[in-house]
Amino acid sequence: MTTPFWFTEDDLNEIKISYAVDRVLYESESEFQTVKVIESKAYGRMLILDGVAQTTDQDEFVYHEMMAHVPVSYHPNPQKILIVGGGDGGIVRELLRHDCVQEITLCEIDGKVVEVCKEYFPKHSSGLSHPKVNVQIADGIAYVKNLPAASMDIILVDSSDPIGPGEGLFTAEFYKSVARALKPDGILVAQTESPWLPGAFLKGIANNIRAGFRTLRPYVGPVPTYQRGLWSWTMATNMPAEQLVHHSARLEGLSTKYLTPALAQVILDITPPFYLDKVKA
Amino acid sequence: MTTPFWFTEDDLNEIKISYAVDRVLYESESEFQTVKVIESKAYGRMLILDGVAQTTDQDEFVYHEMMAHVPVSYHPNPQKILIVGGGDGGIVRELLRHDCVQEITLCEIDGKVVEVCKEYFPKHSSGLSHPKVNVQIADGIAYVKNLPAASMDIILVDSSDPIGPGEGLFTAEFYKSVARALKPDGILVAQTESPWLPGAFLKGIANNIRAGFRTLRPYVGPVPTYQRGLWSWTMATNMPAEQLVHHSARLEGLSTKYLTPALAQVILDITPPFYLDKVKA
Repeated sequence: MTTPFWFTEDDLNEIKISYAVDRVLYESESEFQTVKVIESKAYGRMLILDGVAQTTDQDEFVYHEMMAHVPVSYHPNPQKILIVGGGDGGIVRELLRHDCVQEITLCEIDGKVVEVCKEYFPKHSSGLSHPKVNVQIADGIAYVKNLPAASMDIILVDSSDPIGPGEGLFTAEFYKSVARALKPDGILVAQTESPWLPGAFLKGIANNIRAGFRTLRPYVGPVPTYQRGLWSWTMATNMPAEQLVHHSARLEGLSTKYLTPALAQVILDITPPFYLDKVKA
Repeated sequence: MTTPFWFTEDDLNEIKISYAVDRVLYESESEFQTVKVIESKAYGRMLILDGVAQTTDQDEFVYHEMMAHVPVSYHPNPQKILIVGGGDGGIVRELLRHDCVQEITLCEIDGKVVEVCKEYFPKHSSGLSHPKVNVQIADGIAYVKNLPAASMDIILVDSSDPIGPGEGLFTAEFYKSVARALKPDGILVAQTESPWLPGAFLKGIANNIRAGFRTLRPYVGPVPTYQRGLWSWTMATNMPAEQLVHHSARLEGLSTKYLTPALAQVILDITPPFYLDKVKA
């Protein structure tokens, strides 16, 4: 047994989280970022991009269940889905559990991420070669801009933080382009950072989403390896608000580790006030 | 402006969390533990006992709302409440918002904690001198053992981790003694550590509670300064399960930052399966 060393991540220079590491399994510089896979004591394998933990073997189910099953259960008829980012494949795996989903496009800017996750995160990436799945290694901003208008039912933005390759995926221009690519009853879900971060930052993201969408429904869930342990996602749509209803039959019999059907039913109505206050219009 | 230094907390030697500290406001050795108050950049003032963060000015509302309003809204008639631990006063402050609560006893083993919180955490401790509140500096185990049988409506165990002064508050013997002190329709809520911790540890706590109670309803919520950012509490009762119902009128008009009436209504039914699997009988 070797003495572990530590991988340390900074949070605004206010908090550092260090993970005891047994081994570094992979490390390289891609065209876009540094890509690293470590074997940690606390969470098993972790994918680190530009020094920030993206996903781990132990806690990944929370994030992926929250991004996949919430929009699928709220969309009137979810058939064609685009994921921007999400190169690890975790959301694809969860979406494939729904028979109603017919076509999934994953548009990941960094081919190295897909390649590395296929090798080191087989549990995440198992669905990437499924016949319903089309993997595009391309810039998500350009990809969405070039989509035919009103061509997608759901678009999921599974980006890294708004620094580096993820930055353009948080702009008003991008969200307008997403709205154009969605059908009139389409739904966007974007990861929108930690509810504990400063209000000005979170409100900026929310207002950018408002540039493309009239109804925003943020929701939260615990992701221990993300900043301050709590994460937010924002569901946005241009449907009249009363059409955004939960279709509970979609989740019947679905075995999950975090997002139960009972939680999905109420998830949009239990978002904490301390966070809603920060992002309100 | 001085360069900050760092306060670091260990989590099973697998994770270290470090907080940038502007100032140490207080530090001493009490009869039971080291007591420290720091001014952190991320969370403002933090109370540290034996090197472990207990409460902070910024995130305290989640923990205190979850421990106070959940049991008050599920008890048939909550009048007499005992808090074991909780010397910062945060739960007392929340309980005092309910007119139906007539008498609150706080039994804290370490008088130094109460004294320090009165000075450095005025927002937490504001209710400690309220006429409905009786503060006892005493060992909670002995205090509960000496209570008349069936004398309390609700007992809240707001302890530190089961190492050091908190250890005896996680034993089967203690939970049996709590059950004896509660009226037949009484409710216990105990803090029961992070759902992400090893199953054997969490199951051990649950089984000890089962020694005194037939119905256990664990629930969870995000506390960023506790291990892995997610916390659990367990509500336990010897009422027939069908009597444990939510009295929504109790929370009507209550302004909260985390636990809304809508969340309290469903909180016992949305506990994540990955945690329930660890603690099931």
